[in-house]
Amino acid sequence: MPNQNVLVINCGSASLRFSVFANGCGEPLICGNAENLEKEKAYIKWKVTLQNEPVIVHKEQMAGADHKKILNTIFALLNSYGFLEKLSLIGHKVTHGGEHFSKPVVLNDKIIKTLNQISNLAPLHNPANITGIKLARKNLPNVMQVAVFDTGFHQSMPAHAYLYGLPVKYHTEYGVRRYGFHGISHQYASEKTVEFLGLQNEHGIISVHLDHGSSVCAINNGRSVDTSMGFTPLEGLVMGTRCGDIDASIVDYLNLKIGMPVADITRLLNKGCGLLGLSGISDDIRVLVDHAHKGNADAQLAIEIFCYRVAKYITSYIASLERLDAIVFTGKIGESENLIRDKIISRLAVLGIKVNTQENTKRGDKIRLLSSDSQSSRCQLVLVPVAEELQIAKQCKMLVS
Amino acid sequence: MPNQNVLVINCGSASLRFSVFANGCGEPLICGNAENLEKEKAYIKWKVTLQNEPVIVHKEQMAGADHKKILNTIFALLNSYGFLEKLSLIGHKVTHGGEHFSKPVVLNDKIIKTLNQISNLAPLHNPANITGIKLARKNLPNVMQVAVFDTGFHQSMPAHAYLYGLPVKYHTEYGVRRYGFHGISHQYASEKTVEFLGLQNEHGIISVHLDHGSSVCAINNGRSVDTSMGFTPLEGLVMGTRCGDIDASIVDYLNLKIGMPVADITRLLNKGCGLLGLSGISDDIRVLVDHAHKGNADAQLAIEIFCYRVAKYITSYIASLERLDAIVFTGKIGESENLIRDKIISRLAVLGIKVNTQENTKRGDKIRLLSSDSQSSRCQLVLVPVAEELQIAKQCKMLVS
Repeated sequence: MPNQNVLVINCGSASLRFSVFANGCGEPLICGNAENLEKEKAYIKWKVTLQNEPVIVHKEQMAGADHKKILNTIFALLNSYGFLEKLSLIGHKVTHGGEHFSKPVVLNDKIIKTLNQISNLAPLHNPANITGIKLARKNLPNVMQVAVFDTGFHQSMPAHAYLYGLPVKYHTEYGVRRYGFHGISHQYASEKTVEFLGLQNEHGIISVHLDHGSSVCAINNGRSVDTSMGFTPLEGLVMGTRCGDIDASIVDYLNLKIGMPVADITRLLNKGCGLLGLSGISDDIRVLVDHAHKGNADAQLAIEIFCYRVAKYITSYIASLERLDAIVFTGKIGESENLIRDKIISRLAVLGIKVNTQENTKRGDKIRLLSSDSQSSRCQLVLVPVAEELQIAKQCKMLVS
Repeated sequence: MPNQNVLVINCGSASLRFSVFANGCGEPLICGNAENLEKEKAYIKWKVTLQNEPVIVHKEQMAGADHKKILNTIFALLNSYGFLEKLSLIGHKVTHGGEHFSKPVVLNDKIIKTLNQISNLAPLHNPANITGIKLARKNLPNVMQVAVFDTGFHQSMPAHAYLYGLPVKYHTEYGVRRYGFHGISHQYASEKTVEFLGLQNEHGIISVHLDHGSSVCAINNGRSVDTSMGFTPLEGLVMGTRCGDIDASIVDYLNLKIGMPVADITRLLNKGCGLLGLSGISDDIRVLVDHAHKGNADAQLAIEIFCYRVAKYITSYIASLERLDAIVFTGKIGESENLIRDKIISRLAVLGIKVNTQENTKRGDKIRLLSSDSQSSRCQLVLVPVAEELQIAKQCKMLVS
């Protein structure tokens, strides 16, 4: 399939991202995102990069627009640039594949039925993903469509990592186990790291994806062997608005003590906790870094808690790996916030891991080494810019080739 | 106070342990325990070790006996041996000291009132502790009585370790934070390790207490800086019947999915999970080790999950310490199960930590080194037999001297 376009659609609960890649690789021909769907402040923006022409950036308010309206706008837009004519594949990000999907699959009615069945495992995300799939199939019925799962990469976890200390029937009958998320990003970051460092087949990597949602993943010889998110994306690190790990008995305690219904507690743990709850200022660590610089103690403590938890997850995965070659930082925060990286890495000193301050402080969106030379640092530190849509396109292409 | 006796009373929810130490140290003159309190199968047993006389061991059924009846039996017994005449101190183990008590305190009415106020933080344990205190004060009103807290040692944890990613008001208004437990054991094991290895003031130790309830603790220069149990003893490792860490949203999921009330879920997580839930065989890992040897796959997997979680907690604390000198195993399982220790230590190989197989396999209840010589192991591995009552006696003595 020479020079054929791959469209990637990533539907969130109230947002949507899309990209078109010529032949499924390289820089996108067009990419964009819509936010605040179904709200007054809904908008779409995009960037078109055509050969020998200036880059076009466009933003448009679309008050109240839902997934359907946004997708129709996108299809019209792609058509106007002639991208639909060369379209060979559409890749959809699907948050939760349960235990059914470890690899991308070509979508058909049967698979969509299965996705519907496992929607209760990701009630905020899978229904939005399915909406996008259905609309795209309706609009472009002749184009092959593929689902790429954010849980898929972690299906290689061994039972001792994915099982909770619960009676087995909660796994076998109700699907309660650790699934992990951000698999698309962790796989991309680790594959790029292997390539960049020229690692051999036997390698151990810890991938650190830091964004509004964050997770850490242990990768042994290219396979995920453990990750910090669990049954849902609530578990693990302290995140923008999610609490991460807590004592599960706190749910019962708050229910009894202040009479908060359990569903409200779960909503609080997902939407009102994390950096936002700790700082009382913002769910965006970049905002907290500014406040911390000005001496705000709440922001400083929230950052300390965030970084400490990340460092503990990194070191915990030493018990999961056969060797440790590299730690890779990715995700918007992982890429852009050198102070956060520095605070995390400074907690790895006992391991003999050392940062190259100059490289860590440098700005730039290219893959690069953050560690001191290999003699003085116990393992390499690498920065890989996140490229979720590109990875989805790449996986779609691999599936059909 | 030369040659004066210290009585230690450790009241559990349905059990009671006691010891008398001459001058608060050494081997106990008498020690014993009562189990199954308030049940048909209630019993008491004790062992008396008098100079130049054979050891006396005695067990007695006391159907239906409660804390009061058992304590009266103990006081009569101590009196019959003349131990009460020389009694200078009574030390009580108190499970939860909240944020009020970081060190042992001499008990008075005001302190008992405070203990009552924080009982809701440990509803199964603190009321039993208070019952013991009240009965002992009534029976022996002229003897000084001291409370030693199982949370006290962990009050040195920094905020970034004890705070959850929750809005701050849940800490300040409702006391929701990580407290940690087994402090008496972790402090004893780490102090013994410092003494045994001749460590200097600056040292880093990870203490691993494995029993029916289990926890790991990071100790920096003699102070607890993190531990695996949290708001309650539910958090952290997979234990006999407790699940340890799970995604908190599982509570909501089970509540919705199978309609189980939250209080029942919390009871299940505490009493029906862990090794018992995973294996479907037993909450005692020693029983599971037997089944695993015979090829039982459920027992093998439960052991694997248990050991993996312990190893992850150990390595996670590398991020908490300034240096790592020793890992110490204590608690009934930590002391007796060389296979469990071996499985845990084998996961630390990436750190360069090596076990001395001969020493690890050896039986015996004395403190000993488990690691290879200091040149080949990255840090020392030590076994310290648990001695909670002795540590309580020691702390009482230190308080009054």
